[in-house]
Amino acid sequence: MAVIAPSRRIRRTPFTEGVEAAGVKGYTVYNHMLLPTVFESIEADYHHLKSAVQVWDVAVERQIELRGPDAARLMQMLTPRDLRGMMPGQCYYVPIVDETGGMLNDPVALKLAEDRWWISIADSDLLFWVKGLAYGYRLDVLVDEPDVSPLAVQGPLAEELVARVFGDAVRAIKFFRFGWFDFDGTSMAVARSGYSKQGGFEIYVDGTQNGMPLWHALFEAGKDLDVRAGCPNLIERIEGGLLSYGNDMTRENTPHECGLGRFCSTQTAIGCVGRDALLRVAKEGPTQQIRALAIAGDLPPCDRPWPLIAKNKRVGQVTSAALSPQFKTNVAIGMVKMTHWDEGTQIAVQTPDGMRDVTVHENFWI
Amino acid sequence: MAVIAPSRRIRRTPFTEGVEAAGVKGYTVYNHMLLPTVFESIEADYHHLKSAVQVWDVAVERQIELRGPDAARLMQMLTPRDLRGMMPGQCYYVPIVDETGGMLNDPVALKLAEDRWWISIADSDLLFWVKGLAYGYRLDVLVDEPDVSPLAVQGPLAEELVARVFGDAVRAIKFFRFGWFDFDGTSMAVARSGYSKQGGFEIYVDGTQNGMPLWHALFEAGKDLDVRAGCPNLIERIEGGLLSYGNDMTRENTPHECGLGRFCSTQTAIGCVGRDALLRVAKEGPTQQIRALAIAGDLPPCDRPWPLIAKNKRVGQVTSAALSPQFKTNVAIGMVKMTHWDEGTQIAVQTPDGMRDVTVHENFWI
Repeated sequence: MAVIAPSRRIRRTPFTEGVEAAGVKGYTVYNHMLLPTVFESIEADYHHLKSAVQVWDVAVERQIELRGPDAARLMQMLTPRDLRGMMPGQCYYVPIVDETGGMLNDPVALKLAEDRWWISIADSDLLFWVKGLAYGYRLDVLVDEPDVSPLAVQGPLAEELVARVFGDAVRAIKFFRFGWFDFDGTSMAVARSGYSKQGGFEIYVDGTQNGMPLWHALFEAGKDLDVRAGCPNLIERIEGGLLSYGNDMTRENTPHECGLGRFCSTQTAIGCVGRDALLRVAKEGPTQQIRALAIAGDLPPCDRPWPLIAKNKRVGQVTSAALSPQFKTNVAIGMVKMTHWDEGTQIAVQTPDGMRDVTVHENFWI
Repeated sequence: MAVIAPSRRIRRTPFTEGVEAAGVKGYTVYNHMLLPTVFESIEADYHHLKSAVQVWDVAVERQIELRGPDAARLMQMLTPRDLRGMMPGQCYYVPIVDETGGMLNDPVALKLAEDRWWISIADSDLLFWVKGLAYGYRLDVLVDEPDVSPLAVQGPLAEELVARVFGDAVRAIKFFRFGWFDFDGTSMAVARSGYSKQGGFEIYVDGTQNGMPLWHALFEAGKDLDVRAGCPNLIERIEGGLLSYGNDMTRENTPHECGLGRFCSTQTAIGCVGRDALLRVAKEGPTQQIRALAIAGDLPPCDRPWPLIAKNKRVGQVTSAALSPQFKTNVAIGMVKMTHWDEGTQIAVQTPDGMRDVTVHENFWI
């Protein structure tokens, strides 16, 4: 593995100082910003995440703020998910597609008010798409990236830790809801959400200057909880079937291929871009879909799509893989053609280190 | 420096195999893809670039193809540069701005035909902006990323090497022009251009499968020229004043602040986005501008903006810096307020390692 060259173009976050002090060992780059990938080891981080509590620098989840009379109209243009029933204080996972139904991002939208939204993005410059649409349609809306950086607190002890810093009222926050809580005189959105299946919160830290004080406050409050710096964990997120935009899905894929058809209400999401294409997809169904895959044997890191093979033909590809200590197999995510996507189908994968046996599963491990 | 974690989301290029075999020591991530930053050492690479010839994997310069009846109209919407005089076979450096005149990218546009263009992009998902505009304006144009990956040949011996592989006709290609040349039965655009001041070519390699055969052909043909794998060189590009989008300029900046006012014909580039804002800027002039800066003393890597200080006030920032063996000083690029941007002005810069003396220059070193 090569080192990553320092430059201003790869942005530091409000928490990078804390991440470095905690001994980060690897980074990836996500939305032109540093995202930690490992502290002690991916396996040690995994065990700790499942048993205690971690603080994650996920400032790379940049926010796109929509504000103004046309904000709600623009938000509905962006996604095939029907937003009519969404209330302020709710988070929605919203596939964003282009005019052909190809995935551009899979963010979480926060409705702050009828005329104010945040879109908490995955790894693509979605801001450019949103600005282009707003400009082309002459919408009466401001679109910008505010100085807001999410900090996640994840793991079984997350609620206890967040309650110690923000007060017991956070315990009442329901899944994919958020409330406003004070830290050091600044009001911040605190949501019960996060890129793990261990439970926890995401704090939308308003103002770079508030980053390290909050970081320190969490570590100070959580000493007896064995709080540690962590990051999205490759093993845990594959076990839980949490997709990664750019890894498991790209602009090539429709939401239906990604198993996100349940978030597409193309009949009722009037005005959304890509509706025509997705109505067609919804009618006919996808010809390939995301599946959980168990892979036997030793594996190198998955840094490129690995072809899935059956009877010498390509029937899909693996895009994420890791060895699961809990399930004693390599857990993986891949796109599989409908001819081979049924539970229990036996196929093979062509890795750079050779062929491996694969079992297709319809459900993820957690 | 931390290692970069492997994932499919950080795309390999058609040349990564060759880059690895050549002993790459560092990468950055650019347009969701691996870009080498150092082979032997930045200084050794620098000396070799200035004396021989290097082959650079710059596949990260992804292409956006515009094709169709409205392609030319869309291209002119994208940039304040007047494209009316541009002929097929020409390359234009084109600032791309949003409606407020903020830089979104600074690509090179290639006019393939009246109704077909490539935009060879810097580090942002410009495709999303272009698609958003095309959709919003209902333009009759196809916008996509083709399987085209530039490979640069740079250095004083570049012409000799490219002529050996593509024939002597390449010697007639003028600066920022391109022609079509055959390699192994595939026609490829070969332009006299590149991100160095040492001269050379960029080959727009059509088809991933043609990448490594061309790579090998160049190394085979250039053995006696001491051809080596290289990459954009931090020292050389700062000496030459080659700006880097995301480092030296962002969406915060207008082209005029970046010293790119000469590429903005806002009076005549009718229909371009941001025209109103740039007409205002052109009239009043920018209040800060890119300058060449000589910095005394030892410097850490510049991984964040360093404030420029005069009389305890912030008067700008440094965003790229490196020690120049040729000019015996740290060469740097920064944005400086008009109160301090005159030739020879003495100011200071606040680096993580302490304050350093700075001399402002109006021209770069090369």
